[in-house]
Amino acid sequence: MPITKRVNPFLKINDDTGFSNTGTANGGRFINRDGSFNLRKKGLPFWERFSLYYSMISMPLWKFASIIVIFFVGINLLFTVTYLLIGTNEFTGMIASTPWATYKEIYFFSTETFTTVGYGRVNPVGDGANLVASFEAMCGFLSFAVVTGLIYGRFARPRAHLSFSDHAIIAPYRGGSALMFRFVCYKQDHALTDVSVQVNLAMLLQENGKSNYRYYELPLERSKIESLPMNWTVVHPIDEKSPLLGLSLEDMEAADLELYVLVRGFVRVI
Amino acid sequence: MPITKRVNPFLKINDDTGFSNTGTANGGRFINRDGSFNLRKKGLPFWERFSLYYSMISMPLWKFASIIVIFFVGINLLFTVTYLLIGTNEFTGMIASTPWATYKEIYFFSTETFTTVGYGRVNPVGDGANLVASFEAMCGFLSFAVVTGLIYGRFARPRAHLSFSDHAIIAPYRGGSALMFRFVCYKQDHALTDVSVQVNLAMLLQENGKSNYRYYELPLERSKIESLPMNWTVVHPIDEKSPLLGLSLEDMEAADLELYVLVRGFVRVI
Amino acid sequence: MPITKRVNPFLKINDDTGFSNTGTANGGRFINRDGSFNLRKKGLPFWERFSLYYSMISMPLWKFASIIVIFFVGINLLFTVTYLLIGTNEFTGMIASTPWATYKEIYFFSTETFTTVGYGRVNPVGDGANLVASFEAMCGFLSFAVVTGLIYGRFARPRAHLSFSDHAIIAPYRGGSALMFRFVCYKQDHALTDVSVQVNLAMLLQENGKSNYRYYELPLERSKIESLPMNWTVVHPIDEKSPLLGLSLEDMEAADLELYVLVRGFVRVI
Amino acid sequence: MPITKRVNPFLKINDDTGFSNTGTANGGRFINRDGSFNLRKKGLPFWERFSLYYSMISMPLWKFASIIVIFFVGINLLFTVTYLLIGTNEFTGMIASTPWATYKEIYFFSTETFTTVGYGRVNPVGDGANLVASFEAMCGFLSFAVVTGLIYGRFARPRAHLSFSDHAIIAPYRGGSALMFRFVCYKQDHALTDVSVQVNLAMLLQENGKSNYRYYELPLERSKIESLPMNWTVVHPIDEKSPLLGLSLEDMEAADLELYVLVRGFVRVI
Repeated sequence: MPITKRVNPFLKINDDTGFSNTGTANGGRFINRDGSFNLRKKGLPFWERFSLYYSMISMPLWKFASIIVIFFVGINLLFTVTYLLIGTNEFTGMIASTPWATYKEIYFFSTETFTTVGYGRVNPVGDGANLVASFEAMCGFLSFAVVTGLIYGRFARPRAHLSFSDHAIIAPYRGGSALMFRFVCYKQDHALTDVSVQVNLAMLLQENGKSNYRYYELPLERSKIESLPMNWTVVHPIDEKSPLLGLSLEDMEAADLELYVLVRGFVRVI
Repeated sequence: MPITKRVNPFLKINDDTGFSNTGTANGGRFINRDGSFNLRKKGLPFWERFSLYYSMISMPLWKFASIIVIFFVGINLLFTVTYLLIGTNEFTGMIASTPWATYKEIYFFSTETFTTVGYGRVNPVGDGANLVASFEAMCGFLSFAVVTGLIYGRFARPRAHLSFSDHAIIAPYRGGSALMFRFVCYKQDHALTDVSVQVNLAMLLQENGKSNYRYYELPLERSKIESLPMNWTVVHPIDEKSPLLGLSLEDMEAADLELYVLVRGFVRVI
Repeated sequence: MPITKRVNPFLKINDDTGFSNTGTANGGRFINRDGSFNLRKKGLPFWERFSLYYSMISMPLWKFASIIVIFFVGINLLFTVTYLLIGTNEFTGMIASTPWATYKEIYFFSTETFTTVGYGRVNPVGDGANLVASFEAMCGFLSFAVVTGLIYGRFARPRAHLSFSDHAIIAPYRGGSALMFRFVCYKQDHALTDVSVQVNLAMLLQENGKSNYRYYELPLERSKIESLPMNWTVVHPIDEKSPLLGLSLEDMEAADLELYVLVRGFVRVI
Repeated sequence: MPITKRVNPFLKINDDTGFSNTGTANGGRFINRDGSFNLRKKGLPFWERFSLYYSMISMPLWKFASIIVIFFVGINLLFTVTYLLIGTNEFTGMIASTPWATYKEIYFFSTETFTTVGYGRVNPVGDGANLVASFEAMCGFLSFAVVTGLIYGRFARPRAHLSFSDHAIIAPYRGGSALMFRFVCYKQDHALTDVSVQVNLAMLLQENGKSNYRYYELPLERSKIESLPMNWTVVHPIDEKSPLLGLSLEDMEAADLELYVLVRGFVRVI
């Protein structure tokens, strides 16, 4: 008997997942392990498909710091080249005697200007150098504002700090069996309240000779708790209300079965 | 038979749209393509009718950047004039030998002060120049704080990043026809959850010799989804529950028909 | 017949207002015209009863700017005194020849340090002056951060920008009369959605020889709209479900009648 | 008769608290007086169990300020050592004649660079010193951005500013008795609206020879108010719907009875 026949036909299908059910089976996941959708969006230019701000606040810290440093060095090199094109005779106080030393001295003048340190030993006297220096100081000013915004954005980004068990298991439960997994809010000083959990199941089933995805919302032993101080074992009993009833491991693999979990809650204010 | 007679009289009218139904027909839209209301508010002075902050964070980037640069040049010109009125004899370290060179040297002194670079070759020694310079530095300080606030405001402004299909179409649907349009969250790293859609219809109808707007909320095949990873085709079946049943294109044009869409949802935290 | 007898005894009293009903009548309002509560809280020290941050972000702009300027001048005077106590011999580059000129020169050195301009003509060489200068620069640094936070707080403070009609009136309505007032979101680029209104009435009534306040929630013709693009005339019909039915102006004055309005809504994201 | 028998067996147990009911009795509280959970989380490295940002914005002000000052001094000492290792011959403008004076002069050069004051008397001429100085200025720049973010985070952290009565009491109430406590929003310019209260009770009961915690949600005279301008006396009548009915003080102590209160509300926008 094919899998499609063995799934309880009276179960309510969940058509509100936002996923298409006519997609062909390609064995890939709907949702990646990090919670992002396994989708590629096309049709718009690259820079419109990405939000620079969201990318910058959600990337790992080392990547963020590297971009800042590369930007800092890069923009100062750019201004250095501009100053050199204008000519070093528009500066006073320089002590370099070789071209290479001059390049370095102008580069460090640029960093002093960009960061608004402005020691002032080297300082611009010509019109071109003065104009570029005043523009560079303004750019430094604005870059600082942008970086402050990005850093605060990284700080204030609402985060759940949830850690899930590596595996969801099927284990004995009240005379039958149940699908179970656990999750926890792992930060000591961070908690969620009014937390609800929804577990959706996607299965690839054969219907009239075509492969279609069907989605079910799995009934849970408990789907809401008042606060999440400790770990929560989410339990889906595999009974007559479960689309998993009677399926073997092979069936599940054949049906390209995927579970995904929606957690909703509020970050608590102590 | 006039249009008014042909619209199903038993349909529930939506009186909670917030729009007046006694307005005269002028052919204009209620809501502009960018989502803003097609309204002009009067009776208060200009500067009270606009929120400077909201204007600054919602204007296009090039406009925002231009205002910053114009403000930067403008305020420095203002301080330059002030320093020149006080007299260049209140400064030390100047090297300019012509009036025009002096103007420029003071302007660049001003930019160095405003951005807090302060190279220090030119520096104030007189009371007036010192006082204005200390005030200018404070202004630079505060401007920086304001710009930081504006930039973060631009970053953090909640945005839906939705793209709608250019046209809403009437197409065959389950033996009859339906009004359909699509929308999508077009950013790769941005998603909405718990999204609901409401479609309102405004029609200008003749009642007792007067033109009045009537508003209907259109019943939808699906009005809520759990998340919006892909595009969503919103479908309004044109059946006996639809105010559009039996209307021709000419009727719709005569009735100054307008659809507007309310999307509600949460920006997802991965 | 006393007022208490004339108010419909079957009306549901609203006991969830948060106001006490055993307070004595003093003729004052419950809620001030600006929406704040007419209450004085006691028992805690002054500085714990106020939130410095909320005060700073909700005060008028001129007051906020004045406090910033006063703080700037004040802290620089403080540092000036400190430097003078340490001794001007710990500085190099000074040009003042009289005590008063010295005071001014040190004050301006202080402003240059606090704003991190640092021209550098005058600069500290002694240990004491150096230590205080490095501390002052750090204070400037931190003050800047605080001011940036306050300015952004002022920007980002959620505001309704609502304007109410000066008077609530009782006017003819559908054969009877109704209490009406209007309000509008007066900013051009600002709108609320999913707006609901609740109107509460407080009356002082004699019961068993004691004066007690009773609170009623007034039934409204419409209490919710989808968005608030234009003005909204809130209408409470004075019929048998209204506690105002049969009351004269003198009755209302005698009962120290107060209406207060709760508006709930979301700031719209275009 | 044991306590377990005396508690009304028909009362609904609250299984959605998020606390385990199989924990052994250790006499400790579930929730500390400051509202944090009395839990220790293990299994992850120390730095992953804490959120640096949340720690920094929720610690007392004196602690926060101390950390800032210690960080400021520490990072400048670090850079001082680096400059000294590079060699003081890479600097110009120094006036120190003893090693100790040199250390101090370099330390103050470092603070001038980190805060971007940059007086410029002492300034780097060698490659190493220049490179480190430009890096230090960038670090100062970034530290400033971080501190601004932390300070705004402290400002903007949503806070309830609630003060509870020191004791919950059992007092006469409508012929019987009731458990009561009061709380108030103690800030003058701060208020909550749409406030709801939930009171949970944890009791350690003997069941089949084992100690298990049972949780009850206590029925309240009033659990919701529209706004919280004054204090609120929360009242739980001890009647047949109360798990406390018939328990003596000794019983309560034996059952390790704990009450905890969840307050939900919105900070009001005037």
